[in-house]
Amino acid sequence: MADIIPHWLTKQAALAPDRIAIEQPDGTTYTFLELKEKSQSFARRLKKLGVQNDTKIGILSSNHTHMVIAIHALTYLGAVAVMLNTRLTEEELNYQINDAGAKTILVQQHDRQLEAEQYSFSEVWDMPAYDTELKAEIDLDDVFTIIYTSGTTGFPKGVIHTYGNHWWSAVGSMLNLGLHSDDKWLAVLPIFHVGGLSILMRSVIYGIPIYLMERYDKQLAHDALMNKNVTIASVVTIMVRDLLHLLGEGRYPDTVRCLLLGGGPAPQNLLEQAKSREVPVFQSYGMTETSSQIVTLGPEDALEKIGSSGKPLFPAQLQINAEKNEVGEIFVKGPMVTKGYYNNAEATRKSITNDWLATGDLGYTDHDGFLYVVDRRKDLIISGGENIYPAEIESVLAGMEAIREAGVVGKRDEKWGQIPVAFVVTDHPSVTSEDIQSYLHRHLASYKVPKEIYFIETLPRNASNKLVRNKLLEHITD
Amino acid sequence: MADIIPHWLTKQAALAPDRIAIEQPDGTTYTFLELKEKSQSFARRLKKLGVQNDTKIGILSSNHTHMVIAIHALTYLGAVAVMLNTRLTEEELNYQINDAGAKTILVQQHDRQLEAEQYSFSEVWDMPAYDTELKAEIDLDDVFTIIYTSGTTGFPKGVIHTYGNHWWSAVGSMLNLGLHSDDKWLAVLPIFHVGGLSILMRSVIYGIPIYLMERYDKQLAHDALMNKNVTIASVVTIMVRDLLHLLGEGRYPDTVRCLLLGGGPAPQNLLEQAKSREVPVFQSYGMTETSSQIVTLGPEDALEKIGSSGKPLFPAQLQINAEKNEVGEIFVKGPMVTKGYYNNAEATRKSITNDWLATGDLGYTDHDGFLYVVDRRKDLIISGGENIYPAEIESVLAGMEAIREAGVVGKRDEKWGQIPVAFVVTDHPSVTSEDIQSYLHRHLASYKVPKEIYFIETLPRNASNKLVRNKLLEHITD
Repeated sequence: MADIIPHWLTKQAALAPDRIAIEQPDGTTYTFLELKEKSQSFARRLKKLGVQNDTKIGILSSNHTHMVIAIHALTYLGAVAVMLNTRLTEEELNYQINDAGAKTILVQQHDRQLEAEQYSFSEVWDMPAYDTELKAEIDLDDVFTIIYTSGTTGFPKGVIHTYGNHWWSAVGSMLNLGLHSDDKWLAVLPIFHVGGLSILMRSVIYGIPIYLMERYDKQLAHDALMNKNVTIASVVTIMVRDLLHLLGEGRYPDTVRCLLLGGGPAPQNLLEQAKSREVPVFQSYGMTETSSQIVTLGPEDALEKIGSSGKPLFPAQLQINAEKNEVGEIFVKGPMVTKGYYNNAEATRKSITNDWLATGDLGYTDHDGFLYVVDRRKDLIISGGENIYPAEIESVLAGMEAIREAGVVGKRDEKWGQIPVAFVVTDHPSVTSEDIQSYLHRHLASYKVPKEIYFIETLPRNASNKLVRNKLLEHITD
Repeated sequence: MADIIPHWLTKQAALAPDRIAIEQPDGTTYTFLELKEKSQSFARRLKKLGVQNDTKIGILSSNHTHMVIAIHALTYLGAVAVMLNTRLTEEELNYQINDAGAKTILVQQHDRQLEAEQYSFSEVWDMPAYDTELKAEIDLDDVFTIIYTSGTTGFPKGVIHTYGNHWWSAVGSMLNLGLHSDDKWLAVLPIFHVGGLSILMRSVIYGIPIYLMERYDKQLAHDALMNKNVTIASVVTIMVRDLLHLLGEGRYPDTVRCLLLGGGPAPQNLLEQAKSREVPVFQSYGMTETSSQIVTLGPEDALEKIGSSGKPLFPAQLQINAEKNEVGEIFVKGPMVTKGYYNNAEATRKSITNDWLATGDLGYTDHDGFLYVVDRRKDLIISGGENIYPAEIESVLAGMEAIREAGVVGKRDEKWGQIPVAFVVTDHPSVTSEDIQSYLHRHLASYKVPKEIYFIETLPRNASNKLVRNKLLEHITD
């Protein structure tokens, strides 16, 4: 039976009208009451554009207050927000816009040619407000957002999130991390990704402020943790690296209780470094399909189980398609998991069976039930019959002082089927392939040591900042 | 669409096997892993009694670990727990047992003649364990408990609670009170009532210990708050009075962050006293039908809005059937509200319309949206066309030093229709009706002052310790 709750922003504005909902580095703030009033006012203006129940509306913006208002405004009309990644090309954006059937896009600025009507936030504000009925309740079964998977291969798929998916994600995280009355969550991850969007949801559900940063700036992020009473921050590996660097021998205030680390496996040495500086990094595992984290290392285990992504959140379940302690594909289930892909029954059928989502990731659980993600299934290198996980080699490479970052990929080989080859970015021009290979031989079995090492300027990353391994081979010109 | 979550006790035992689930004043503790194993073992023994999906099983016990185990055991079999009040007569119990169709009752001891097979907890432990499949998941739409409303008039009705009702109640409370990793909840309210049962649910969902007291003992309860690191306690008025008395001029440790007060309106002077001693009493409003509190005064407002029950919890809604600021019947809605009464479609139809529950209580909201409960609708006294709320007069009476407790009720009167009459319990034999009436005249409009004052030994209370006003008149022998 469908669960109905009061509209969450209206409710939060009624419960805690004067509490801060949004704080920004320049000092501007919005209370929940102000955010509600602005969002309702924006909704009344959107009505002029024919936005109604189930209308798909694109949102193309960096983390700006107007974007937050626009998202909430769509909820008041029952419209579906198609979250568009600002880093995509026009071609990529048009694919998603057309696939989702979005005829209208709300943009921060007019700087793209897109196959839909574009309205900037300020253009909407200039429209008259209609006297229209706004949603007073939320049906958790209704669709709220569509977010395309960044797709390191193939066409992106539009992941459908209901309000319930986001609700359960927020509740699952709260059961893991607790909820303190002084919590403040750093929102620097892009809101067009589910990792950033979920911070917004938690804010309105928990009644806590977000510290909203329009784009990632390591100095500002560091300052937020040091001086702005941020208690929890959602981060990715590169941010942890930057923050540790800026922290130096210093310490964060005790109020910093969690750096929630997502976006893929982190190098072991980085986690060790964080541990040694008493920075509470909690690894997590999740994807667009799970409405952000679904497996997270809890506070109690963060130090003991370094390298693990933890255990599935309270409402979630996990299965590994393998014998105990063996590596296999990771399956997850829970009310935060998407019901499927928009307009793509085949992809849905392929990915979801009896509510279990096949993640395409490989991992194992230890005897205490902690998940260790080893790699993407499709990135697995099979060399002479041995399984080689690029992420394992990358992690060792990242531990070598001379190496800033590294990517490993399988290359066709007549004799072995595939061989691992590495692409590294270094700040030390004097380091040689031989240095690196000899370092690797001290840490890895021989068959895992890349047979070829390539020095490149930067690693190819997609719009989510994820390493795109299959583009690495394009660097080999021979 | 039905939400499926992993079985909550199994899950908590997997997430935090060594965390304490139950702590008792004698020092014994059970971890979540131990509680799970015992509950599963008990379930395997119950199987012999033919307990299966949807079987109604009575539970008749005081707050004992075996009772907790029995409740969880039923969840592993999908059976429905009919929670029976140990203070009821055999006749009252048999009414509920027959109405619920419970053929089996799990009892603490064999001390009643009941119209069902009785098995003591220890008898079940003596049975062999069957190798049977236990539930690994919980469907939130499934029925979990039936609890009969204590019924100050008429036949009791069996309130049906789904797992979802209990889940949402726990989540709603968490969003109000927050969740700290060191939380420990005092469970002294009877678990056969929803107020006590809900503590058990929060424990397993939040992963926090309960401090389980078999029966109310004011000294032990005081000790729990003073010395046992209890952070939250569910209490009723009489307990607050006792605790304040024992506290004297002392102070609780800072770790005591909430005394959640339910069970009916509390006298203003008691709340003022608590405030002056910095005891964080949060008034709340709820009933069996709402799976415990549904309206609660939040930490931020506890001092400002003394006397109010607060605002509806995040997932809940409230309406007063009256003009703004006027007294009217209280209606509530939310996913913690029962879907209806067992085996009683008529009562369900009368009470619930479009998911809104008519509570039968009267109240109003102030201009900030805070609820003030004034009385039960059926206890309203109409005297010469004026509405008189017994609870208001009782509250004033309770503020008079000579009076221990008081009950007010309407008596038929030829001239006025009804007149208010008071029944008081006093420790000061010298106090007279005239003293009391003259005190009341200083605080209340004349038409509200009871025309007759009766001195009695104790007030008639039902098994939930609630004043049964309609039995007061039986004290008048003329």
